[in-house]
Amino acid sequence: MKNCSKYKRQYFMPPVTCMKWAEKEYVDKAPVWCSVDLRDGNQALVIPMNLEQKVEFFKLLVDIGFKEIEVGFPAASETEYTFLRKLIEEDLIPDDVTVQVLTQAREHIIKKTFDAVKGAKNVIVHVYNSTSVAQREQVFKKSKEEILQIAVEGAKLLKQLTEEAGENYRFEYSPESFTGTEPEYALEVCNAVLDIWQPTADRKPIINLPVTVEHSMPHVYASQVEYICENLKYRENVIVSLHPHNDRGCGVADSEMGLLAGADRIEGTLFGNGERTGNVDIITLALNMYSQGVEPNLDFTDMSAICEKYEEFTGMKISERSPYCGALVFAAFSGSHQDAIAKGMHWLDEKKPEHWTVPYLPIDPKDVGRNYDADVIRINSQSGKGGVGYILETKYGLNLPAKMREAMGYTAKAVSDHTQKELLPDQIFELFKKTFENVTSPLEICSVHFQQKDGGITSQVTSSFNGREVTTEAAGNGRLNAVSNALKKEYGFQYDLITYQEHALEQSSSSKAIAYVGIRKPDGSLAWGAGVDSDIIRASIDALVTAINNR
Amino acid sequence: MKNCSKYKRQYFMPPVTCMKWAEKEYVDKAPVWCSVDLRDGNQALVIPMNLEQKVEFFKLLVDIGFKEIEVGFPAASETEYTFLRKLIEEDLIPDDVTVQVLTQAREHIIKKTFDAVKGAKNVIVHVYNSTSVAQREQVFKKSKEEILQIAVEGAKLLKQLTEEAGENYRFEYSPESFTGTEPEYALEVCNAVLDIWQPTADRKPIINLPVTVEHSMPHVYASQVEYICENLKYRENVIVSLHPHNDRGCGVADSEMGLLAGADRIEGTLFGNGERTGNVDIITLALNMYSQGVEPNLDFTDMSAICEKYEEFTGMKISERSPYCGALVFAAFSGSHQDAIAKGMHWLDEKKPEHWTVPYLPIDPKDVGRNYDADVIRINSQSGKGGVGYILETKYGLNLPAKMREAMGYTAKAVSDHTQKELLPDQIFELFKKTFENVTSPLEICSVHFQQKDGGITSQVTSSFNGREVTTEAAGNGRLNAVSNALKKEYGFQYDLITYQEHALEQSSSSKAIAYVGIRKPDGSLAWGAGVDSDIIRASIDALVTAINNR
Repeated sequence: MKNCSKYKRQYFMPPVTCMKWAEKEYVDKAPVWCSVDLRDGNQALVIPMNLEQKVEFFKLLVDIGFKEIEVGFPAASETEYTFLRKLIEEDLIPDDVTVQVLTQAREHIIKKTFDAVKGAKNVIVHVYNSTSVAQREQVFKKSKEEILQIAVEGAKLLKQLTEEAGENYRFEYSPESFTGTEPEYALEVCNAVLDIWQPTADRKPIINLPVTVEHSMPHVYASQVEYICENLKYRENVIVSLHPHNDRGCGVADSEMGLLAGADRIEGTLFGNGERTGNVDIITLALNMYSQGVEPNLDFTDMSAICEKYEEFTGMKISERSPYCGALVFAAFSGSHQDAIAKGMHWLDEKKPEHWTVPYLPIDPKDVGRNYDADVIRINSQSGKGGVGYILETKYGLNLPAKMREAMGYTAKAVSDHTQKELLPDQIFELFKKTFENVTSPLEICSVHFQQKDGGITSQVTSSFNGREVTTEAAGNGRLNAVSNALKKEYGFQYDLITYQEHALEQSSSSKAIAYVGIRKPDGSLAWGAGVDSDIIRASIDALVTAINNR
Repeated sequence: MKNCSKYKRQYFMPPVTCMKWAEKEYVDKAPVWCSVDLRDGNQALVIPMNLEQKVEFFKLLVDIGFKEIEVGFPAASETEYTFLRKLIEEDLIPDDVTVQVLTQAREHIIKKTFDAVKGAKNVIVHVYNSTSVAQREQVFKKSKEEILQIAVEGAKLLKQLTEEAGENYRFEYSPESFTGTEPEYALEVCNAVLDIWQPTADRKPIINLPVTVEHSMPHVYASQVEYICENLKYRENVIVSLHPHNDRGCGVADSEMGLLAGADRIEGTLFGNGERTGNVDIITLALNMYSQGVEPNLDFTDMSAICEKYEEFTGMKISERSPYCGALVFAAFSGSHQDAIAKGMHWLDEKKPEHWTVPYLPIDPKDVGRNYDADVIRINSQSGKGGVGYILETKYGLNLPAKMREAMGYTAKAVSDHTQKELLPDQIFELFKKTFENVTSPLEICSVHFQQKDGGITSQVTSSFNGREVTTEAAGNGRLNAVSNALKKEYGFQYDLITYQEHALEQSSSSKAIAYVGIRKPDGSLAWGAGVDSDIIRASIDALVTAINNR
């Protein structure tokens, strides 16, 4: 691309190396979660939510388990004011849930904000001002000292008006556009705000370090966070919060590395809704922890219901590849993946290991309410024996011989390749029955009689081939063998009977059994058939006849 | 969520600390890019691409600038075989593009693969086997030594058959499920393969380290990659490649940190298509580099065309929040963001700085073929004066006074809030005209005559108010003032005329001008009007009348 010289890196490294976080491997404890769906998420929608949708969304967030929820900018919008009043007046905020409101540090706006939250039990009032080089120069046209004064004056005013109102609200301060700000300067501003607020253990303020725009790789952000955490005044009485956006596709990594770097709290949204590329997706963060054995303190057990409500309320569409929730994220179409998953599931059943380790499935789809049949093993032209065999076995109770699975796999692949469609489980079952079960054309058996004779079995087989009925007698070392010999004798068929398996059909109410027969043709290739009957002898004969008809 | 104890971490740390990569800040050089859209991407589609779509997709990849393209598994599928033959026979592979084919290490499959690539100028043959603990135990039920032997025998067979065929193909080996494999063991297997292949400077094999399933945080993967890079035999003659998937939403971070850790090459897809949560999105990787001044060697200048083709060929939908390409990723609906962007764009015009630093826009949308008007500043009920003012100024040449922008902002917000719809630029312009331009009801001016008198101006104004026509005379210190005085005298209006601005309408062909008038009412609030006319006096009178009608 031309023009790349018009860009440069817009972030700033801390003055000292801050990479201690990298000694930790993973996030071993859930942070405090704060949903900003109703503010940052809502303001990024083409059509923002209406009052009713906001109320429903709030209930959804409470049900999932959020204990801190940013509800908007009530002084700036009538809808957001009304929404908050409704939550309070209709007593929709549980006692253990804190509502967070955003405000600018101007007297009449703070007062209107206080009006809006009147009567709420737990409130965080969140003030911010922009501190980045770009915003200082281009938007505010102010010096570092002047921008710091905006923050300090805002902090003072908020404290003073809160005291005057006789309230005990918690405070949050964000140096907005932190990722475009010199870390030393951001630290100076945050410490100046904390000097005003004088944090205490029973009323900890929140210092929020937003990735307003992602400008750097995540380890750079983590080192900035570590620098602030290590140098913040009153650190033990301050909650350090992160608010990552996703411009470089690294919001999740920013959040997780920022937590390793010392942060205590995450502001994000469901499904990564939010300005531009979105806020960090809290679902991914929570289930990343879960998949490593760490309790996230949020409940996504019924993911489908959450997806449905989200799409309804926001008008957004969840990407099919969105981790843990997208329509295709548990799907395996490729033959080798299906085979490994099928073997992994068998291994799970047999060995009952302590921990989940099924290949290609980072978590058990059932834990988020998804099904193996419908969501995991899906059959198209890329699929093979493993997937088809798995579906026939788990959904329809058919345990095909290994080589017959292969034949069925090719059959399904050919249909899917030809029709250019996915095959659903029922279609696969129908295809199996049509192709491999009780096929009676051109060869059909009309009746069979057996006799014990000379220590062997003799069969008398009445059959028709394209309609002409004949009766043939032949001996064999077993019943199926005797029938096979009769058919060979009558019609001159050339094959070896190489595989015979049978099992009861547990899913059938009439205690039927299924028999599978494989024959090898003179050219070495195989042909297959299955027979279903309450009489296992009849089932085996039908299987043989089908194999012959398929040869 | 219940059940979290059923999970544990499934990855393995290297035996020594490998964090040297973290001393680097960013990726300063484009890797070798390999597209796996036609293989990994295609096999993850509900309906895989047909022959024609594959050919078109291949052309798209070539146009974007990919020099290595994995085209499939030609020995395993008739469609993929035919596709590759078509590319070769119709001479669709440029001389500087290498096609890569996946194969299993079995003689007849390798031979069929060689048939498929016959006649291609540059070929990489890619063999793999799975090395993870889970796959060794559950799928292959083999020991470490046996799994290593599969790799070694495969490497030998590939080398031998290539020599017998008199070909000079390049080789790639993947220890599949690398992220679930002990790094020391993966290293042992890779080195054993390289011992067979005996890398040379003019025929470097590729060792590919796939994140088959994302099991760890990205810095853990980077340390695994660094460990392999530091300990690989023949390192200077080996290309180390990464193939990240996205199960934890960190495919981009895996790739970028893996490159810092020493890798040379990335396998990924457009828009992150691929198994489950997808492969790493090469568009994000490339434009992350670009946004920091590094040439990615791929061209995404016409992103809309690429999006359109991708959606057509794959049947997938690009997420509205997908970095650099989604429909909403440059959009700013919120008032403060719009204001900052508008100021940033002005600053850019005025200062002509060397580097792009506009707030909230990590890259110039124009660099990927997007428009400021349609894609950046978008107006809904969350928007304010900044956005509306910006659109009226840049698209329609109207430079409203600051306070009038505010009034227009509230007007637009109210309409959008009420209708619950986004307002498009033309609708905003119409709303402006309807509300603020040449409004002649209830007050209308029929005619005005001026006279120079006693060093001042006297106006004779014929006006009507709800239809009743009257003529009034009054003096003033200027023409507009004289008309204003006449109207006050006749109707008893109470206001102060506080703002008057005008400018030529450059976008008008008939050299018209626009005048803006603001009046302050007795309660201190403001009312606004604009007038458009080729006579600037008339325009100013129309502006005043409109402001009066709006009071």
